[in-house]
Amino acid sequence: MKRLLVIGIGAGDPDHLTLQGAKAIGVADVFFLVDKGEAKQELVRLRQDLIDAHGRGTYRVVEARDPERDRSASAYAEAVEDWRSRRSQVFEQLIRDELRDGETGAFLVWGDPGVYDSTLAILEEVLDRGQVTFDYQVIPGISSIAALTAAHRTSLTRVARPVHLTTGRRLAEEGLTADDVVVMLDAHCSFAGLGPDVHIHWGAYLGTPDEILVSGPVPEVADRIRDLRSQAREDKGWIMDTYLLRRTPPPADPGA
Amino acid sequence: MKRLLVIGIGAGDPDHLTLQGAKAIGVADVFFLVDKGEAKQELVRLRQDLIDAHGRGTYRVVEARDPERDRSASAYAEAVEDWRSRRSQVFEQLIRDELRDGETGAFLVWGDPGVYDSTLAILEEVLDRGQVTFDYQVIPGISSIAALTAAHRTSLTRVARPVHLTTGRRLAEEGLTADDVVVMLDAHCSFAGLGPDVHIHWGAYLGTPDEILVSGPVPEVADRIRDLRSQAREDKGWIMDTYLLRRTPPPADPGA
Ligand SMILES: C[S@@+](CC[C@H](N)C(=O)[O-])C[C@H]1O[C@@H](n2cnc3c(N)ncnc32)[C@H](O)[C@@H]1O
Ligand SMILES: C[S@@+](CC[C@H](N)C(=O)[O-])C[C@H]1O[C@@H](n2cnc3c(N)ncnc32)[C@H](O)[C@@H]1O
Repeated sequence: MKRLLVIGIGAGDPDHLTLQGAKAIGVADVFFLVDKGEAKQELVRLRQDLIDAHGRGTYRVVEARDPERDRSASAYAEAVEDWRSRRSQVFEQLIRDELRDGETGAFLVWGDPGVYDSTLAILEEVLDRGQVTFDYQVIPGISSIAALTAAHRTSLTRVARPVHLTTGRRLAEEGLTADDVVVMLDAHCSFAGLGPDVHIHWGAYLGTPDEILVSGPVPEVADRIRDLRSQAREDKGWIMDTYLLRRTPPPADPGA
Repeated sequence: MKRLLVIGIGAGDPDHLTLQGAKAIGVADVFFLVDKGEAKQELVRLRQDLIDAHGRGTYRVVEARDPERDRSASAYAEAVEDWRSRRSQVFEQLIRDELRDGETGAFLVWGDPGVYDSTLAILEEVLDRGQVTFDYQVIPGISSIAALTAAHRTSLTRVARPVHLTTGRRLAEEGLTADDVVVMLDAHCSFAGLGPDVHIHWGAYLGTPDEILVSGPVPEVADRIRDLRSQAREDKGWIMDTYLLRRTPPPADPGA
């Protein structure tokens, strides 16, 4: 039997790796690094650093190229599905050709594998096609949500209240759907139109030396975030940012 | 200056501690263990085990008793606020009397400090009162949400879709507010009335040797969960469970 580990590595800080994640890296025979072919060399480097730090004995690193994704498509979910299906063929080939029976392969997943990541869905698709068989285990990681709230020393939840997790696209379409909303995957500062009763806790490059944090009532800080964001994006060639929107009152209530 | 670390320790598995969390335990001079006076001795023991494993040199452990909380109160949020305020007096006293200037004190928080936990709010309340001053840092942890989805090898999110995080009380009052809902703090199996189009991924004692996992369409598994839950609760004297509700179709789509 072939065995796979899907290891959440945290969202930027190498020390956000869990002890379980470090041990899992230590037992893997093969690491699959699927290169997004983007400018995010630092993200590839973090994976390589973690393998260097926690890998044991001999291991192989197999790099593969991600299929291109059609980012111009208007039907976002369909474009993602299509991309995922082509991606699953790449994964299938890796597992078939690069992992021997009895060996353990590892995918190092950014943040937590459960949060807006396609790896688990792709593995299920590979299994469904029935061309290769394997067993797999998922190792949770620190998501950018946990990294965001910790960096801001604020709580995700308020006492007995719900929190919504959504995307920039949906925020733009639907507006605030709750008093507490976390937004990911936002390329367009979709918070910009919100009023002074909404407080934003924004973070970019969380957990990395380039971390940027801004918080305040949206109208007071929106321009600053936009400027910082476009400047940083230009300087580094890429950006990842996440934010928590909190409608007040209740005023200064960070916890639950 | 006094310094405090609020360290997320994960939701049950000692290996869910992050490297950052382990290092933080290693620099603390004083650990504050606030005992809930409940039957959850195993939860106290996990904290003690982590201190034994990762504490360095000499350190002190200071135990304090949590004030009682009025669990019969119908106004849940107010009861929590009141309890939190009395709790903050306990914390203030600990920081004032048990931590010297220049020392580092640590609170070991279950799961992630941002997820339905009062520690951060209490520290802010202590600071607001102005009787003691300190600086503090928050170290994110694996929440029971990440532990749940990893154990079920499922994704929290589906492609481009939102997820709601809520409490059992709210689920009972409001029903399903989205196609994907995570429920915590549910003492009453509030999922019970949901229909066959809703799939549940349920987990109790996640990350511990007693972990129980059940998943399936709600009407098919609700009785089994209820029975397992009440039996386990009786056997151990306490239970902690969390679940993800997912309305289908789309059918087998664990990822995003
Ligand atoms: C494809 S999702 C992957 C999320 C990841 N699995 C997690 O648990 O954080 C990418 C999005 O995550 C968020 N993100 C990931 N890492 C981040 C970081 N270091 N700082 C800020 N946002 C981050 C951003 O919203 C980004 O658009
Ligand atoms: C007061 S909240 C604390 C949550 C914690 N800060 C976290 O990040 O998971 C307690 C609730 O968390 C959930 N929980 C915590 N640990 C759990 C575990 N090991 N297994 C299942 N649920 C857990 C349950 O829903 C429980 O009612």
